Amino acid sequence: MKGVIWGIAPDAQIADLTHFIHPQNVLEGALVLGRAASYFPTGTIHIAVVDPGVGTQRRPIAAWLGNFYFVGPDNGLFTILLERAQEHEEKVQIIHLDRPRFWLPEISNVFHGRDIFAPVAAHLANGISLVELGTPISNPKMLEIPRPQPNEAGWRGQVVMIDYFGNLATNLERQHLASMGAVRVRIAGQEIRGLLNTFGDGEPGKLAAMYGEANDLMIAVNNGSAAQLLGVKVGEPVEVLPD
Amino acid sequence: MKGVIWGIAPDAQIADLTHFIHPQNVLEGALVLGRAASYFPTGTIHIAVVDPGVGTQRRPIAAWLGNFYFVGPDNGLFTILLERAQEHEEKVQIIHLDRPRFWLPEISNVFHGRDIFAPVAAHLANGISLVELGTPISNPKMLEIPRPQPNEAGWRGQVVMIDYFGNLATNLERQHLASMGAVRVRIAGQEIRGLLNTFGDGEPGKLAAMYGEANDLMIAVNNGSAAQLLGVKVGEPVEVLPD
Amino acid sequence: MKGVIWGIAPDAQIADLTHFIHPQNVLEGALVLGRAASYFPTGTIHIAVVDPGVGTQRRPIAAWLGNFYFVGPDNGLFTILLERAQEHEEKVQIIHLDRPRFWLPEISNVFHGRDIFAPVAAHLANGISLVELGTPISNPKMLEIPRPQPNEAGWRGQVVMIDYFGNLATNLERQHLASMGAVRVRIAGQEIRGLLNTFGDGEPGKLAAMYGEANDLMIAVNNGSAAQLLGVKVGEPVEVLPD
Repeated sequence: MKGVIWGIAPDAQIADLTHFIHPQNVLEGALVLGRAASYFPTGTIHIAVVDPGVGTQRRPIAAWLGNFYFVGPDNGLFTILLERAQEHEEKVQIIHLDRPRFWLPEISNVFHGRDIFAPVAAHLANGISLVELGTPISNPKMLEIPRPQPNEAGWRGQVVMIDYFGNLATNLERQHLASMGAVRVRIAGQEIRGLLNTFGDGEPGKLAAMYGEANDLMIAVNNGSAAQLLGVKVGEPVEVLPD
Repeated sequence: MKGVIWGIAPDAQIADLTHFIHPQNVLEGALVLGRAASYFPTGTIHIAVVDPGVGTQRRPIAAWLGNFYFVGPDNGLFTILLERAQEHEEKVQIIHLDRPRFWLPEISNVFHGRDIFAPVAAHLANGISLVELGTPISNPKMLEIPRPQPNEAGWRGQVVMIDYFGNLATNLERQHLASMGAVRVRIAGQEIRGLLNTFGDGEPGKLAAMYGEANDLMIAVNNGSAAQLLGVKVGEPVEVLPD
Repeated sequence: MKGVIWGIAPDAQIADLTHFIHPQNVLEGALVLGRAASYFPTGTIHIAVVDPGVGTQRRPIAAWLGNFYFVGPDNGLFTILLERAQEHEEKVQIIHLDRPRFWLPEISNVFHGRDIFAPVAAHLANGISLVELGTPISNPKMLEIPRPQPNEAGWRGQVVMIDYFGNLATNLERQHLASMGAVRVRIAGQEIRGLLNTFGDGEPGKLAAMYGEANDLMIAVNNGSAAQLLGVKVGEPVEVLPD
């Protein structure tokens, strides 16, 4: 993909965001992209390919959502970015990539990243406009993003991502907990009382809760792996109650 | 290696193609390079280091093969590129890197990537010509690339690579199957009838055959890993028969 | 982090040195950085984040040590570079990063890499001087780097790193062994007689000792993994005796 990009846009600067999305996990890709994309400069072109439907009828798309271009499959990967742009009443434009003259001459059914998305992104980098690349659409596929639910006196959410260190990111955010005062966090039969400021404030090897890099409630272990200690996976329920 | 390159050629753009070749597997390196190299712009300098013989009598080489420079050990890593350039009657020039003034001042016996190949590649990027860097040779080491064999009514090949998703790439190509009409594919005691267009056309969890990113016959599982389902490794025989 | 850097310093060239330091292993990070940093061009800005104390009272720092900038936590990660610069009587300047106007506007307690170190490094790339970024300090945290000890007739050291191939890097250096003539190396109940020049001079599958990429004594297996064969970890004692 990088070779193809540089063949069309020789000065493009390219960074890998992650190669560690679990195979076919479009939701995980959407969540990671939702957290990281906005830290890049305005106008950055994000190519994202978690694409179990590659080569089927699912459309290849490119979009301007708020401040960035996105290029990839129309399978919901950009849901969070699209919702956020709409919430902020920012410009949204989505294009069905249906003009093969902007692709590689030969298209493999199993590697649209190389043959469609990379050349399209490179043309965007060269200043080709979105509307030249295809046909506007208004019905992109949207994922159902799991949302926290109110629960007796608190909130019930879930683990949405697990990082390299075994820290558990949840879909519970600072805004959900802000009004609750002191809290207890329940996960996998364990209860954690109160929030710490950061990893190092915890006792080594002990479970702790704190706000993560995205202002989400995070479950972690100082010098250890919460995922391993609890034996949990993405989707594990998490409850927050007043203490 | 990147630090060394930028010390000599500060504006070089550098991409990592892969760090996941199995240790010492020169054939795997040759196959991956053979699939990816030609997607880069003409004139790209490819450094490839799968080098169990580092520091022994095996020569360090640099080459122009068709449209690209290659720098690395003379152990067969460039076999496919060399054969392809010769088939297409493109320009071929191979140089034994025997002029230490283009290397780092101190050479470790175990890390020629950093001490010889990176600086030589950077000098090429700066416009130094191949012939300045060493002595022309005409007897590079060639690997024996496994080729499919005709077989009763069809072809017998093998698995040559397994990707991150567990998809099995084979050395059977579209050209071998094109004249056969409907086919059956046999691997590890299983038989697959017919070819699909792409992953998503298969039943989830079921074995399927299709053409891969390089127009090779690929064995895959929709939303799963063919390697795991079949328990096979590189080298596993694959048969194709008319159906 | 790359997005943040490019937002401030759009032309910065960025390379990843490694993402495979074991979690929280500051010493391993210090050793890897000590081996690799000096291969980059003078003036390179090295961001290093192995940071179990992120968000606690440990200071964020930036430094000029010899020929390079370093940005990261004040937890000893730069010990080897600092000691080396002092030994060579090179310029040393260390700054406590205490001026939030050079950071992102919002600081997460758990991701200073993104919110403090990346923007500070980008400002350095833009030509902002170290002293503008914070307050000079003279008491950076130093790690105790394990040193070899003389031992009857030889030296006793330890395994300090294990690479992707299972090769064991030790803290015994060429200078320790140079005067000893022929040597025997003892590790994990095994004895290796003599040093080879390189991997490929060894019998396949057999333990061998040689000098590694950093002129350190390395234990390796030709076409195999010494770590696996011996079942050892970082910290394993290694003895060298005259033969």
